[in-house]
Amino acid sequence: MSGQLYVDWRASLSLVGTVVKWLSVPMLFPLAVGVYYGDGGIPVFLTAIAVTFTTGWLLERLDADPDLGTREGFLMVSSTWLAVTVVGAIPYVLEGHGVPFLFAAESPASTLADPVNAVFETMSGFTTTGATVMGSISFDAHSRAVMMWRQQTQWLGGMGIVVLAVAILPKLSVGGAQLMDAEAPGPGLEKLTPRIAETARALWGIYIGLTALEIVLLYALHVLGYAPNMTFYNAVAHGFTTMPTGGFSPEARSIEAFSAVVQWLIVPFMLFAGVNFALFWHAITGDWRHALRDAELRFFAGAFAAGTAVLTVLLFTDSGLVNVENVGRIAGAVEPSLRYATFQMASIVTTTGYANMDFNAWGAPAQYVLLAAMFFGGSAGSTAGAVKAVRWLVILKSLRRELFTTVHPEAIRPIRLAGRVLDESTVRGIYAFTLLYFVIFAAATLLVFLLGATTDGPLTFLEASSAVAATLGNVGPGFGIVGPMNSYLPFPDASKLLMVALMWTGRLEIFPLFVLLTRSYWTD
Amino acid sequence: MSGQLYVDWRASLSLVGTVVKWLSVPMLFPLAVGVYYGDGGIPVFLTAIAVTFTTGWLLERLDADPDLGTREGFLMVSSTWLAVTVVGAIPYVLEGHGVPFLFAAESPASTLADPVNAVFETMSGFTTTGATVMGSISFDAHSRAVMMWRQQTQWLGGMGIVVLAVAILPKLSVGGAQLMDAEAPGPGLEKLTPRIAETARALWGIYIGLTALEIVLLYALHVLGYAPNMTFYNAVAHGFTTMPTGGFSPEARSIEAFSAVVQWLIVPFMLFAGVNFALFWHAITGDWRHALRDAELRFFAGAFAAGTAVLTVLLFTDSGLVNVENVGRIAGAVEPSLRYATFQMASIVTTTGYANMDFNAWGAPAQYVLLAAMFFGGSAGSTAGAVKAVRWLVILKSLRRELFTTVHPEAIRPIRLAGRVLDESTVRGIYAFTLLYFVIFAAATLLVFLLGATTDGPLTFLEASSAVAATLGNVGPGFGIVGPMNSYLPFPDASKLLMVALMWTGRLEIFPLFVLLTRSYWTD
Ligand SMILES: [K+]
Ligand SMILES: [K+]
Repeated sequence: MSGQLYVDWRASLSLVGTVVKWLSVPMLFPLAVGVYYGDGGIPVFLTAIAVTFTTGWLLERLDADPDLGTREGFLMVSSTWLAVTVVGAIPYVLEGHGVPFLFAAESPASTLADPVNAVFETMSGFTTTGATVMGSISFDAHSRAVMMWRQQTQWLGGMGIVVLAVAILPKLSVGGAQLMDAEAPGPGLEKLTPRIAETARALWGIYIGLTALEIVLLYALHVLGYAPNMTFYNAVAHGFTTMPTGGFSPEARSIEAFSAVVQWLIVPFMLFAGVNFALFWHAITGDWRHALRDAELRFFAGAFAAGTAVLTVLLFTDSGLVNVENVGRIAGAVEPSLRYATFQMASIVTTTGYANMDFNAWGAPAQYVLLAAMFFGGSAGSTAGAVKAVRWLVILKSLRRELFTTVHPEAIRPIRLAGRVLDESTVRGIYAFTLLYFVIFAAATLLVFLLGATTDGPLTFLEASSAVAATLGNVGPGFGIVGPMNSYLPFPDASKLLMVALMWTGRLEIFPLFVLLTRSYWTD
Repeated sequence: MSGQLYVDWRASLSLVGTVVKWLSVPMLFPLAVGVYYGDGGIPVFLTAIAVTFTTGWLLERLDADPDLGTREGFLMVSSTWLAVTVVGAIPYVLEGHGVPFLFAAESPASTLADPVNAVFETMSGFTTTGATVMGSISFDAHSRAVMMWRQQTQWLGGMGIVVLAVAILPKLSVGGAQLMDAEAPGPGLEKLTPRIAETARALWGIYIGLTALEIVLLYALHVLGYAPNMTFYNAVAHGFTTMPTGGFSPEARSIEAFSAVVQWLIVPFMLFAGVNFALFWHAITGDWRHALRDAELRFFAGAFAAGTAVLTVLLFTDSGLVNVENVGRIAGAVEPSLRYATFQMASIVTTTGYANMDFNAWGAPAQYVLLAAMFFGGSAGSTAGAVKAVRWLVILKSLRRELFTTVHPEAIRPIRLAGRVLDESTVRGIYAFTLLYFVIFAAATLLVFLLGATTDGPLTFLEASSAVAATLGNVGPGFGIVGPMNSYLPFPDASKLLMVALMWTGRLEIFPLFVLLTRSYWTD
């Protein structure tokens, strides 16, 4: 029959409903925070929980026994991030508006009272991007409950990404994601087999364990007197946003607000968050060698070390970095040069997005290194965004092969990764993904320009392009008005919605979302 | 035998010698210009001709009967551009220094007296890049003979590119260049068959004919009173730099120096120069339909039209473009908006590099459109540089296929171009070329930053990246200090030499030069 849909959208949306329904459970945590501090989060989160649970329950009714094929998988994955974003935005809107006859607005001046801003902030949270449109990042403007919810969206998003990266994308053979498949072999997506469920549980265990370890260590620094403002609230808040490479902070000046020892402690956790979680599993189950021999890990470590070295030299020799606001002298000072370089390179290359200073103060060469790092990304199978190290590694290997076969046209040379021969379709998928990533980047930058100037005036090249790179790559901060101590608030609504789409696109590795735009997905 | 070279470098260099020897013949033209104007070019070019002929003759002696295989082809092609650059720089150096006991320097203050600058200017000429390091573009600082030689290097470079694009690169199967092979089928590079030689002659005929037509039309405008300063000298000078998509002008303010009607006349010639020359051949031999049906031509035309439309709207609405120096009002004025948009889009997308105004005055959105066009490039088989339209077309087709096969993993879908099925290795070559192009762009931009500030102070992002894009893409001008009315003079020598390498790399479509850097090229 012509025009018939070949996708079981009811099954997909029913499973989305299940996810939404369960999202009401973690909302109990900010409710508890509201109860503890008594600062007004209680009616906001009680209402949000009720709405979230009901919405999820209703969606779930669409199909009593949902059965997913590959196509339904694409729809389910894409819709999930959108659906949780819509319901996850409710607390922000409620805090700004209140509910007539039920409770009054607590923060009537909140920029997040605007639904576009609230959706931006929530998509930024669940995709672990960390770009913000919060006008005032302060407990004067927002309750501790809502501020904790903001941190928690990233942590929950990270949980979703772990499942996405290990169990779903490899099955959908997206842009070379099948590389990850060796870690979780099994049948199609039709049934989440015990094996995949077990893998996901194990990786969640690692994720939860590292989060807990970071919280404990951060708070220990506070107790020992090395971090006066790293309260238990702050320890939890930052624990929630490191492992998902999120980057939200309840401090307006991000990690600059904390002592040098806190900054150093966060570095390894950002790097852990950028490593393929399957390697931790290997390490924990006794196979340390396998983990350390991993080709992607070595490549990532080498790139990180090289980038940090270049950045350290650039900061050390930049004569402009003598009297930096809130920071002091960096030029000519060894520990600060090394600390700012290491922290920012770790933060940007893993797409975490924390800042331990406003890198708008850096010279253009050092900023350029950061911008390039925004496209590099962490490892596949981690919570990091952007192109990811393994794709760059395969591309470099393939370029070397191309040079070789130009001279030796008759030679057949498969590309190997960790001893395995890669399928040529995998190599092609990686090329396609990476070029599509750049095409989207270039087109979206043009669109941001065409959608108009900000309330701060015309955009520069660097502002427009870094805003796109930072949202598409789920990094968070860019340069200029979207610098780490600034926000995306001055953009027109249309640009903000475009960036919501970019964060969503980047997080899903483009293809699961873009196939929904093709005719043949729905009708063939 | 270990360590033995498998490349017959004597054969390669002997043929390079032949090219160098013959280069002394076109040097007779600037000599004639010197004789006509009596402004001092005579001793410069007599000496240059003697040195060039002798160098070529000596190189030629390396092998009495050179026989080229594929590998020797790579070496010969790469060395040719370098060798003609070195001897082609002689007139600039002689003009600045003179020859002791023979003749005195005519322009002791010339920036091109410095060999690094002279080599930069010459490589920029022969690669038809059009980036300049000439301190003063004026007949007060340089003889008319030397200024004509500068124009002529581009025209000669264009002759070389026609052969390269039609007869050599397709045989070397470089980065998808085999696409062009259908236009000139035949055996390997071992012998330039009559068929290929005939093709090259036919295309040279088109090249010479279009050049002559442009010179006649430009001078006719002068005679008819529409172009007071388009003297016969200027008509020839610009005829020499349009068809090779060169962009050098003896006028310091490029095409801004001429009337609007001159500017409009040059537009179609720039576009012709960006079209696959084989299509003109089809058209001339009566097969107009074949030419107009060409997939790359249509794609290029569509991209050009879209880019020009966007640019026109941006210039028309830019409130900053009301009192532009030397130009007047553009904002709100239809003909000027259309003219500046059409001219600059044609100039940049075909990588010609002429300017009819200083586009540094434009807003960032309009500049962004130009920057993006720098990566697009003209058609394969033309004299244009950069990535080239056909590669982008194949990439877009391949990305569409990738979306389709993500949903239909079992489907086999070859990529077709003009009804022909493309080999998967061709598609892969195109992906590899394009990504390598971006990798070189990103790495070279970092290097430009690391090689240090200019004599004008620190570089901005846009300056560093557009300088690299404009030299690697053989475009010529960039933004900021490398804008169309400025020059590459303020860069440190190391950066200039890097850009010489970039112009060379970009013109040879990367692979013929880069394979020389692999071990297996020399020893396997
Ligand atoms: K982030
Ligand atoms: K040019």
